[in-house]
Amino acid sequence: MGPGAGASAIDQQNAYELGKLIAQEGWVLLTGGRNAGVMDAASRGAKAANGLTVGILPGADDRGISSSVDIAIVTDMGNARNNINVLSSDVVIACGMGAGTASEVSLALKGNKKVILLTDNQESQRFFKSLSADNLFVAKTPVSVIEIVNKLLS
Amino acid sequence: MGPGAGASAIDQQNAYELGKLIAQEGWVLLTGGRNAGVMDAASRGAKAANGLTVGILPGADDRGISSSVDIAIVTDMGNARNNINVLSSDVVIACGMGAGTASEVSLALKGNKKVILLTDNQESQRFFKSLSADNLFVAKTPVSVIEIVNKLLS
Amino acid sequence: MGPGAGASAIDQQNAYELGKLIAQEGWVLLTGGRNAGVMDAASRGAKAANGLTVGILPGADDRGISSSVDIAIVTDMGNARNNINVLSSDVVIACGMGAGTASEVSLALKGNKKVILLTDNQESQRFFKSLSADNLFVAKTPVSVIEIVNKLLS
Amino acid sequence: MGPGAGASAIDQQNAYELGKLIAQEGWVLLTGGRNAGVMDAASRGAKAANGLTVGILPGADDRGISSSVDIAIVTDMGNARNNINVLSSDVVIACGMGAGTASEVSLALKGNKKVILLTDNQESQRFFKSLSADNLFVAKTPVSVIEIVNKLLS
Repeated sequence: MGPGAGASAIDQQNAYELGKLIAQEGWVLLTGGRNAGVMDAASRGAKAANGLTVGILPGADDRGISSSVDIAIVTDMGNARNNINVLSSDVVIACGMGAGTASEVSLALKGNKKVILLTDNQESQRFFKSLSADNLFVAKTPVSVIEIVNKLLS
Repeated sequence: MGPGAGASAIDQQNAYELGKLIAQEGWVLLTGGRNAGVMDAASRGAKAANGLTVGILPGADDRGISSSVDIAIVTDMGNARNNINVLSSDVVIACGMGAGTASEVSLALKGNKKVILLTDNQESQRFFKSLSADNLFVAKTPVSVIEIVNKLLS
Repeated sequence: MGPGAGASAIDQQNAYELGKLIAQEGWVLLTGGRNAGVMDAASRGAKAANGLTVGILPGADDRGISSSVDIAIVTDMGNARNNINVLSSDVVIACGMGAGTASEVSLALKGNKKVILLTDNQESQRFFKSLSADNLFVAKTPVSVIEIVNKLLS
Repeated sequence: MGPGAGASAIDQQNAYELGKLIAQEGWVLLTGGRNAGVMDAASRGAKAANGLTVGILPGADDRGISSSVDIAIVTDMGNARNNINVLSSDVVIACGMGAGTASEVSLALKGNKKVILLTDNQESQRFFKSLSADNLFVAKTPVSVIEIVNKLLS
């Protein structure tokens, strides 16, 4: 999960790297599916490593889909599809921060999902730790995200 | 698409055969994902032919999922997930009939999707043809369903 | 519930009359909320009798709302909001028929709701009776719809 | 909007007072509708001042509804109904904080809605201000919330 149009260059680099590492672990990558920001970068990374990618789209058809999404789920639910994103994920990784990403982290914590923040943003780290000390993790690099996920899944 | 608990033996045979043929065409099978009736039979058929299966689940977690579903989408939307089922499909195939299946056929026609009925049920054939003469097709066997899909996609 | 753009003149007359009668009973009228067809006619009828009207809108804001809706619920869920329409209703009344209305009747029967059809359409009467003999009722006039609802609620 | 089971005593006092003031302004109160925490307290406050209350429920029926809700909207969408809560509101007021409330504030900001935080929680103030300087307001008392809403609506 992560910003679309508002994603920073470093968020997109991290997302690409994360997508690649997720595919190399043999995991399926699930994103919001649009051709923008973190969603697109992560999907491109996963395809570069021959991964399988799922995109949960907000619109009523697949317009605006990332060309790196293999399986498109068309919800026509706008941002309410963010709840499907997190409920369908074994672990939620937030790469960067914005209002949409914040809703996904919040919905994930509400749904008792483990969440890993990959962002330098201090306000978001402090806030989400205050919401859930147990299910919220912070990582500094894509590699350390993968290490945390492996611990959580084992 | 098709009934869960209320599926007849012939519906389930048809669904299994359909799943197998869909996989043999190299298509992805998308169902409602539960371990019941047509959803489960179609997914089993697809896996028997090494297909890829997606299940759009109604609940808040993957309890009750068919063991033949590869990719679980967890919606927590109950029957409103039926709209996602049809919007995410290139062609909608209804195998048997019931209230849930009728909602999927109706939502598909409302969303301008092509629908193929694989059922002897005369009332449903007449009713859905009256709703949409252009987008509604009737087939007698799984093989003829596949022929219709191939024509629609070409 | 009933067609929007495709509503016939008689459907709209029936809907207006129904809205009026519903308000006169002191009931709250709930519709799909748009400024079209049966939804708008029923809401106008209810307001003519000083009723309270709720509209469950498909879009992301209240554009296209009927000017006779008092309380707008903005879902941004497209046709999936049809499930909310029926789950929020004590009794579902279908005035006329179309693909969207058919999805509402189907979802209502799936959700164990009582449904009254106010339509001459023989195909829809036969089809929905075949889905649920117990929960499906047919009426010829708005007045007889109200009589059935009163029996069902008592 | 605000916590259910996890609401503090002061959150519930604030919510009750807010509900009362909202009703006295002649506005409709919309909450998550459940018989818990901030939702219930705000609805009780509004009814104490003869207001009209709407509850957007997460479940498939009205079990667990606050007895102070006049109009129940049954969504069967779990926490995805939080998006409907904020889209249906002219102004979103968060009374207290928790994971669900955080998702509502986030979805509101994503949907370009004005949000007023009524909470001492410093982490949430800093975080949400960092997401949206323009649409996020902080108030210390129910009375000052109403003042801000009046300015925003004028």
